[in-house]
Amino acid sequence: MAIDNITWGEPWLRIGSRQFRSRLIVGIEQYDEVDTVRDVLAATQADVFITSVDPDSRRSSLLLSDLDDAMDLDQMTWVGTTSFSRSKDSAIRTAHILRDSLGIDVLKLDVRGEDNMPDNAATLEATYQLRAEGMELLPFITADSACATALEEAGCAALRVMASPVGSGAGLLEPSAIRRVIESVSIPVVVEGGLGSAKHVAVAMELGASATLVNTALVRAGDPIKMAVAMKYAALAGAFAYQSGPMPELATA
Amino acid sequence: MAIDNITWGEPWLRIGSRQFRSRLIVGIEQYDEVDTVRDVLAATQADVFITSVDPDSRRSSLLLSDLDDAMDLDQMTWVGTTSFSRSKDSAIRTAHILRDSLGIDVLKLDVRGEDNMPDNAATLEATYQLRAEGMELLPFITADSACATALEEAGCAALRVMASPVGSGAGLLEPSAIRRVIESVSIPVVVEGGLGSAKHVAVAMELGASATLVNTALVRAGDPIKMAVAMKYAALAGAFAYQSGPMPELATA
Repeated sequence: MAIDNITWGEPWLRIGSRQFRSRLIVGIEQYDEVDTVRDVLAATQADVFITSVDPDSRRSSLLLSDLDDAMDLDQMTWVGTTSFSRSKDSAIRTAHILRDSLGIDVLKLDVRGEDNMPDNAATLEATYQLRAEGMELLPFITADSACATALEEAGCAALRVMASPVGSGAGLLEPSAIRRVIESVSIPVVVEGGLGSAKHVAVAMELGASATLVNTALVRAGDPIKMAVAMKYAALAGAFAYQSGPMPELATA
Repeated sequence: MAIDNITWGEPWLRIGSRQFRSRLIVGIEQYDEVDTVRDVLAATQADVFITSVDPDSRRSSLLLSDLDDAMDLDQMTWVGTTSFSRSKDSAIRTAHILRDSLGIDVLKLDVRGEDNMPDNAATLEATYQLRAEGMELLPFITADSACATALEEAGCAALRVMASPVGSGAGLLEPSAIRRVIESVSIPVVVEGGLGSAKHVAVAMELGASATLVNTALVRAGDPIKMAVAMKYAALAGAFAYQSGPMPELATA
């Protein structure tokens, strides 16, 4: 089937002059090839480019400038991530490297434990420190409304809430908990982690997520570009369904 | 958000010169207004127009010619339905009225019981008779592989398999049974009945359905046109995801 361009519509998030329109964010830290990253970003009509850096080796994933020849970067927001970090201190060191070496001031903040699950308490502590330094943050937590409210009060630009363990492809294990988080804050909520196929993206968006973030599901799909396109349409489908409101039986389910 | 036109791609079904490209079929028997039907069909980029007739009152829903001033009908296939019928004889009488009065020879064949559930045995009997008369059939059954195989052998153009009771919005109650039906026949399978929101459409298409059919879910949605658009994107999302193949954990689930 043909891959059509679609219109994402109004931004769901603005940080200064930067606008986030795409309802699908794609993690690209697992790709080494510029061409693959370009194709995935183009297929999803992405407007976020994510760079990770290991605070110890200082090895980074691709930089936005690496794509300079491959695509128009005007609409792209460059976001850093601390997804390698397994402690608050490591996350903060990573944030400083991203800021001081690359000028990145919008951060996909991850503080995960040794089990690779978000550490909500440590994430909140890292948030307080990095907000005091003026960083714009999109922290990643499990679906806990109290933590979500605290992060909103700390001035986070948006939240990212885990659907299921990162890389699992298990979909949304606790949809009602995610719905409660979405309803408990007024900042945008991104659903992320374990979204294994297009249907999971649709489910997340129908709960009222502002966007979804996928990564492993594309890397490991039979055809990553086709799955990227599928997820783009799924994000749009879920957003429209949420805006419409389903038939009453479903709205109360 | 903007509503974009998309490309459905290659037909999933051909009957003579008639081509079915849209992966979303919309039941329109519940609408009385030409304008609403036009808007729903346009929003989904439909290429099937369905007319029902009550064999006793001979009252019919809108005819294809009713839309003549409202849209380009060149790409539309006119399909009849026997969804009012609660017996084999009633379904056959309805088929004859549709053929003799309106020239319709492609039939969405429904033979349901008093409980409004598909009567697989009676549907198979009606199929034998109507196939002998040369009608092109898309019968509606519960997810039974033996019945599906018999209908394929009887020369049906495609099958329609129930996801959950018509009008329930309950989604796919037995996805593995539907997958077995899809895998047991080589004709296209449409999933229909109880698809309440966009996510259900995505799930059905990811199982390998060639198309989905929705009706009540649009009529009763908060905004039927927006939900129609959502389902169009969901059908596309599921089709692409199925073509891609999800990550291995999901493929074996």
